[in-house]
Amino acid sequence: MKKNLYTLHRRDFLKQSAVGAGLGIGLPNLFAVQSAAQHLPQLSDDSNVIVFQGDSITDAGRSREHQEANSSRSLGRGYAGLIAAQLMGEQPAKNWQCYNRGISGNKVFQLAERWQADCLDLKPDVLSILIGVNDFWHTLTNNYKGTPDTYEQDLRTLLNLTKQALPDVKLIIGEPFAVAGGSAIDDSAWYPTFNRYRAAAKNIARDFDAAWIPYQTLFDEALSEAPVEYWCPDGVHPAIPGSYLMAQGWLDAFNSLK
Amino acid sequence: MKKNLYTLHRRDFLKQSAVGAGLGIGLPNLFAVQSAAQHLPQLSDDSNVIVFQGDSITDAGRSREHQEANSSRSLGRGYAGLIAAQLMGEQPAKNWQCYNRGISGNKVFQLAERWQADCLDLKPDVLSILIGVNDFWHTLTNNYKGTPDTYEQDLRTLLNLTKQALPDVKLIIGEPFAVAGGSAIDDSAWYPTFNRYRAAAKNIARDFDAAWIPYQTLFDEALSEAPVEYWCPDGVHPAIPGSYLMAQGWLDAFNSLK
Repeated sequence: MKKNLYTLHRRDFLKQSAVGAGLGIGLPNLFAVQSAAQHLPQLSDDSNVIVFQGDSITDAGRSREHQEANSSRSLGRGYAGLIAAQLMGEQPAKNWQCYNRGISGNKVFQLAERWQADCLDLKPDVLSILIGVNDFWHTLTNNYKGTPDTYEQDLRTLLNLTKQALPDVKLIIGEPFAVAGGSAIDDSAWYPTFNRYRAAAKNIARDFDAAWIPYQTLFDEALSEAPVEYWCPDGVHPAIPGSYLMAQGWLDAFNSLK
Repeated sequence: MKKNLYTLHRRDFLKQSAVGAGLGIGLPNLFAVQSAAQHLPQLSDDSNVIVFQGDSITDAGRSREHQEANSSRSLGRGYAGLIAAQLMGEQPAKNWQCYNRGISGNKVFQLAERWQADCLDLKPDVLSILIGVNDFWHTLTNNYKGTPDTYEQDLRTLLNLTKQALPDVKLIIGEPFAVAGGSAIDDSAWYPTFNRYRAAAKNIARDFDAAWIPYQTLFDEALSEAPVEYWCPDGVHPAIPGSYLMAQGWLDAFNSLK
């Protein structure tokens, strides 16, 4: 799953100067950068398409054979499924269409590779993105050569493209996080570099008027109540209570959308 | 999965007069019926073992390779997983141990066959049982010969046995339900007989001082907000919002435990 990532990354389809030709996803006029500070419209009762995008944290074992909205198999065992259950259970008149399109191992450039089919074609009213931990982690484990700047530039390009195609889409961006003490978190290797990915995501959320989910803060605070093994044993992949924590943080952000 | 059910049923291991010898689960003194109206003790912070028992509605695709507590694989995609997430996420100091032991297709006598390993050995503080729809449904589809009286007698015997082995266990009993209009619900075949199973479960919950979850009422009321396809397409197996509805009903019952 993780081979050839460096090769893939070196394709510059996400460089802003080549985004139209390189992405190959059939969108004209991709070079213009739209103002991101536009007012976010009310969700319509007629259409509430939510797309969850990200890596393994979002994927959470979802079935690839079930791509439809709103099924427990298609939504996986993580925060996306909990969110869909709560939204659909509590507000049944809203015509929710919840799609999970997270894929384990993904970095931001890999979202871009599948963005037409796995995001734009679904015409989300709300697009939720949690990406970044692999953009750093795979520099340690997979010889991936991306930097925090690569991550930030690629994610900005992807969001500009998204705003071009879906001017009214509401964005929710989750903070990449690493829970202290998790078995995969080697502090000397992860810090301070990993913090730059977190900061980049936060700056992007601000610039794109996205709702922001401070996952790192949520997990940091949760550690005062139970140990890392309870919330997120390896520091990256949440256990059930960690997924619940994320879902509640997500819903707070969702409810803050204008 | 469903063959030989009649044969299994005809074994009279659940008849109260033969329960000690027939169940073969190593419990002495099974004949004495304990008062069910005993006071339920407070849950201890040191041990909060919850066992979810039932049929496919509880099973909900859980992994048989994951029998451990608290994992998303072991808890499945249904109400048990949603409950575990909410309890563990909201009350992290409680030392929850949530086990799902629902098995698709089960009727009450099949719970009894595996009760030692799948209930008593786990030493639940709280035992949640939702059983009964197959006790009726399989009379239509699988030539099962059990009656409402069989169901009631077998469930009473099982609970007496449970109280003998686990005098302090707190019980939560869910109402067997069939959601009107579901594709598997043929009104002329299901009613009025199916209502007798619901009534039996309710009487048993009262007699055993169990917390009662009125699932039928919850689904009936939910139909005023969205159609059966939204909550429970076949009338038996909930979709995601139906699982959420069940989880909230379960938590109400749980919170009512003394």
